[in-house]
Amino acid sequence: MLLQSANAMSNNHTQKDKNLVIFMPSGRRGRVETGQSLLEAARQMGVEIESICNGRLTCGKCKVHVEEGTFPKHGIVSGSSHLTPAGDKEKELLAEMGDGCGRLSCSAYVQGDVLAFVPEESRAQKQIIRKSASELVIEIAPAIRQIYVEVDTAVLGEHQGDWRRLQTALANQEGLTDLTIDLQALRRLQTALRGGKLAGGKWAVTVIVWQERELIDVQPGYVEGIYGLAVDIGSTTIAGHLCDLRTGAVLATEAMMNPQVTYGEDLMSRISYAMTHKDGLDKMHTAVIKSLNQLAARAAKSAGLRPRQIHEAVFVGNTTMTHILLGISPVELGGAPFALANRDSMDVKARDLGLRFHSGANVHVLPSEAGHVGADNVGVLLAEEPYNQEKIVLTVDVGTNAEILLGNRDWMFSASSPTGPAFEGAQIAFGMRAAPGAIERVRIDPATKAARFRVIGEERWSDEWETEIETETEYPAHLAVGICGSGIIEVVAEMFLAGILQADGRFNPNLNHERVVWNGRKPAYILATGDQTGNGEPILVTQDDVRSIQLAKAALYAGAKLLMLRANVEKVDKIVLAGAFGSYINPQHAMILGLIPDCDLEQVYAVGNAAGDGARIALLNRNKRKEAQTVAHWVQYVETAVDPDFQNEFVGAIHLPHASDAFPHLEGMLPEAVAIVRNGRSRRRKRG
Amino acid sequence: MLLQSANAMSNNHTQKDKNLVIFMPSGRRGRVETGQSLLEAARQMGVEIESICNGRLTCGKCKVHVEEGTFPKHGIVSGSSHLTPAGDKEKELLAEMGDGCGRLSCSAYVQGDVLAFVPEESRAQKQIIRKSASELVIEIAPAIRQIYVEVDTAVLGEHQGDWRRLQTALANQEGLTDLTIDLQALRRLQTALRGGKLAGGKWAVTVIVWQERELIDVQPGYVEGIYGLAVDIGSTTIAGHLCDLRTGAVLATEAMMNPQVTYGEDLMSRISYAMTHKDGLDKMHTAVIKSLNQLAARAAKSAGLRPRQIHEAVFVGNTTMTHILLGISPVELGGAPFALANRDSMDVKARDLGLRFHSGANVHVLPSEAGHVGADNVGVLLAEEPYNQEKIVLTVDVGTNAEILLGNRDWMFSASSPTGPAFEGAQIAFGMRAAPGAIERVRIDPATKAARFRVIGEERWSDEWETEIETETEYPAHLAVGICGSGIIEVVAEMFLAGILQADGRFNPNLNHERVVWNGRKPAYILATGDQTGNGEPILVTQDDVRSIQLAKAALYAGAKLLMLRANVEKVDKIVLAGAFGSYINPQHAMILGLIPDCDLEQVYAVGNAAGDGARIALLNRNKRKEAQTVAHWVQYVETAVDPDFQNEFVGAIHLPHASDAFPHLEGMLPEAVAIVRNGRSRRRKRG
Repeated sequence: MLLQSANAMSNNHTQKDKNLVIFMPSGRRGRVETGQSLLEAARQMGVEIESICNGRLTCGKCKVHVEEGTFPKHGIVSGSSHLTPAGDKEKELLAEMGDGCGRLSCSAYVQGDVLAFVPEESRAQKQIIRKSASELVIEIAPAIRQIYVEVDTAVLGEHQGDWRRLQTALANQEGLTDLTIDLQALRRLQTALRGGKLAGGKWAVTVIVWQERELIDVQPGYVEGIYGLAVDIGSTTIAGHLCDLRTGAVLATEAMMNPQVTYGEDLMSRISYAMTHKDGLDKMHTAVIKSLNQLAARAAKSAGLRPRQIHEAVFVGNTTMTHILLGISPVELGGAPFALANRDSMDVKARDLGLRFHSGANVHVLPSEAGHVGADNVGVLLAEEPYNQEKIVLTVDVGTNAEILLGNRDWMFSASSPTGPAFEGAQIAFGMRAAPGAIERVRIDPATKAARFRVIGEERWSDEWETEIETETEYPAHLAVGICGSGIIEVVAEMFLAGILQADGRFNPNLNHERVVWNGRKPAYILATGDQTGNGEPILVTQDDVRSIQLAKAALYAGAKLLMLRANVEKVDKIVLAGAFGSYINPQHAMILGLIPDCDLEQVYAVGNAAGDGARIALLNRNKRKEAQTVAHWVQYVETAVDPDFQNEFVGAIHLPHASDAFPHLEGMLPEAVAIVRNGRSRRRKRG
Repeated sequence: MLLQSANAMSNNHTQKDKNLVIFMPSGRRGRVETGQSLLEAARQMGVEIESICNGRLTCGKCKVHVEEGTFPKHGIVSGSSHLTPAGDKEKELLAEMGDGCGRLSCSAYVQGDVLAFVPEESRAQKQIIRKSASELVIEIAPAIRQIYVEVDTAVLGEHQGDWRRLQTALANQEGLTDLTIDLQALRRLQTALRGGKLAGGKWAVTVIVWQERELIDVQPGYVEGIYGLAVDIGSTTIAGHLCDLRTGAVLATEAMMNPQVTYGEDLMSRISYAMTHKDGLDKMHTAVIKSLNQLAARAAKSAGLRPRQIHEAVFVGNTTMTHILLGISPVELGGAPFALANRDSMDVKARDLGLRFHSGANVHVLPSEAGHVGADNVGVLLAEEPYNQEKIVLTVDVGTNAEILLGNRDWMFSASSPTGPAFEGAQIAFGMRAAPGAIERVRIDPATKAARFRVIGEERWSDEWETEIETETEYPAHLAVGICGSGIIEVVAEMFLAGILQADGRFNPNLNHERVVWNGRKPAYILATGDQTGNGEPILVTQDDVRSIQLAKAALYAGAKLLMLRANVEKVDKIVLAGAFGSYINPQHAMILGLIPDCDLEQVYAVGNAAGDGARIALLNRNKRKEAQTVAHWVQYVETAVDPDFQNEFVGAIHLPHASDAFPHLEGMLPEAVAIVRNGRSRRRKRG
């Protein structure tokens, strides 16, 4: 009875003190307690407002415009202010910014219902990056190991030096001989030894040894914990996993834009930037190093570590990315014969690259296969191990470029296919990157031809949205802004399935429908209507967009077919879709569209960022580095650009689907495939 | 006849156009042609005037005060100006400096006889350093070699990478396998290869390979020339030889003060500075690196090279110096058990130390023997090779500390003796470093007790000076300013030989002479009279000075005797005096004073900077580095500080000469020894 009334009181309290706060333009809303700052409220609701000083009233970045007042449908009437008034410092800051009517969200505390508008400059929307570590079984045998060792103390009349004394102890205890010591570790050696004095008179230290040959760290006493960073440097996205090298656990995953995007969206424009600007290489190198330092700092922070605790790193990336990473000009990769400066794996001190990891940390860059098939593809090889399988596996890694692998334990071919950036949303009228508001899923009703879609940042499909601000929960967090890579694949496939497009990719001239607008000979499909978009204008899929996708998918398909021709196989047993893109396109849609050759649908897998997984594998297991080096040499690279067979296959693969006889089983099961697609769930990854 | 008259004309011309210029306070004088700048004139006469901008009228460092006019004894009478008038820019600069009557010597051109006074702030007197490479026969087999190689060009469809292609060419041509490449070289590889395109289609490059295992440089085409730097980092002086690694030739020798002197004159004060100042090590490390960069730049410049052309370096120094060089705290060397961080040799990338040599250059630091016997002593070992001799050799290297080696091919002992800095002129009333004006040679007439001496910077002995400015040639370039290390040894020995001092080191109380002043119980000998010195005050040798020398020489002698005791030998076959100091003290004086034990005078050699020679040997011959490592371990170090035998020998060696029975043959031949000494010529180095 007593308990019950306490609960009732608590409920009363909760309801009474909670105020409705709505943030525009996202429309996000929620109830917050009286006294919370608007900035805190925004964070709770997933509305990202920029703030550098974190409430210290210094940066002025968190400004919002506030429409105070009661919301009629709740019937609350209040003449009092719904926010605490601005203090002198806040007023001063706003005056400096020339803004009389704004508020700094960090200093405005909620007193009642509030509608706040977050202006463009205050938004801190980050790219949503979907690269994340998948679950792989990796044997833990990293390139570094931590050893606790007790060392004889120095005595007068014995002159071997502290480093020799430590070497002797390590030789006796671990059988380690011919060790060298990193200068930075040597500098700390004597202090560490004397800091670890034991009662028995010996010195105890914990050292870290790299590849059983170089001592890179020494700390007094018993210390536990070694950490490493595996990074996939994509043309667009840099994604890293910070790993515990004892357990293999991923402690943090961070991703960010590759800052080189400023110097060119695709590889060729970056190569050309390096070619035409004297300091081009330097700028791009510095930019990526700076980002890697930021990424490491963030990952370390979120794992409760410092970047200086990163003792080892493995980097993968396409050849242009690894060249620039190492400060090597990529210009030779820009033209035949596409000569690499170095194809083999490389160990470099992190400090020599300007990376602020541990002072003795080593960076291992996986080897490349050929001028256009880089360490990222070797990462995919390590992660998927097609070279250990009996089945013939086709692996497709679609990023800005597409790398294709075909083979099994007996033979292996690789190729790079010039898909262009259409799959990433570039060269598409309403294309955009995978950012909030991007349409990423599309379903078209074959009967009504109307589309329903899902945008990044909002869980619900568009047909569940309520676009009038009437209820608290129904207004979408983000309205549609454009179409990202996976969205463009789906919409083109769906348009084909719905009969809007013909097999040759042209809009069906016999279809007269309100969703299709004919601007003379430039037809377009209305994917999102004006009331579903942020700017009130509809989002269209044009004939040119369809052509771009046709060219890209034909290049991908032709690359795969070329390798099948070289290998003299008619059919592949298994298809692996790698890359962030591969994780979010639906295998069925990919096959409907003709991105990939015929294969049992059960045997099509999306494996996410396999390149990053490969980097992680090489980070956790040093033997895998040797394996990578061997396999990279063993894979036979096939040059697509100059091969007449490629041109042949390319032309034949332009259609949607490229040739109906390639889909005998699909032809019959299309309704079923469509049903699966409707289900909206991508299949889970399976190993083996 | 025609010829004769032409000569006559030329003579006339020469005499007519040459003007007498005298620089004060040095008194240096000479005749220069009309139109020469005063700065040029000063340089010709060895008067060092500071100049940074080198005549660009920017720095204003070269200011002099000018007494124009004719010099009566030449009978030249001239009313016109003897210098070109100052231009606007010069006037402006002088006005800025608040100096109305000065001239900038770079812009004042001689028109007649001039007397110029160089003020203190304009003087650029450098330390005169006598470390210079002696002539040793060294087999040329450096750690780096230059290889011209022709490489297959890259072709489409072949993906090994340019580095692999170069590796293949080097393996085929030179049998080099398992080569690694320095990142900096890899960055230049592709440009270099393509810059060396041959008519036949191949690529030609010249590479530099370190220790047959790492490629550190690649340049297009055929290039010849590899250079290295050997440096002896003394506590007081840093001396380096820039060598041509093809011929072994010394291209330039540079020396400078060790800038760490600011932080303490001797090793203990520097160790203590590192101990008591948080940034002490960092400051001393940075200072020495900066100086090494300056030294390298100067040496390179004087050889017509750039510092970036230094591809390899060998450094020696005492243990404190090598620790600080490597950025390792020397504090453990400051107290028992005097533990070295590392006794063994070390290879470090020059760039990791902040040395601006070639980007891939390696620095080799020779090993040490014990806490207080460092790489410099190993350098002496390499240079003198006592470990290859049948004779028992005593090697004494006197710098701020004295290192002693005793042994032959069968056994070898080493010790460090706490001589203190008296031998370097410190702790001496009128002591100074070996700089212009320092008394470095002394002879005392036993009859008159008057001294004649020679100062650094003036060839003539003081009894040939004319201290009135009457003739052009007789005024000394430098008057006496103080006494340097070799001078103090000689004067004490001479005072003893002349009967001014007794065997116990006390001033002879029975001697009543105008050259000896008795300030109560503090007698002193007048070495230079007021008219022979720069400031007009006499230079004295005090009783305390004699005591300091007695203590220092006793320490040195006791160290040598201790090793003889340990080795159980009565007599040494040969004595080698190493170090800058060893080159300038007279072996006879050293024996008279009792610095060194009894030995046939014919078998006493002064070998100059043997430590530096050892560094040069290790620079020119990589096999000597292994030899150094082996020998450094093989030598048995004897700790002097705690040995009762050392104390014993020390007390017994205080006398002058320490014990007359130790000099049975000298006793008889003293007059002869004196005669040799009078001769004033130190004996030439002999190899044997």
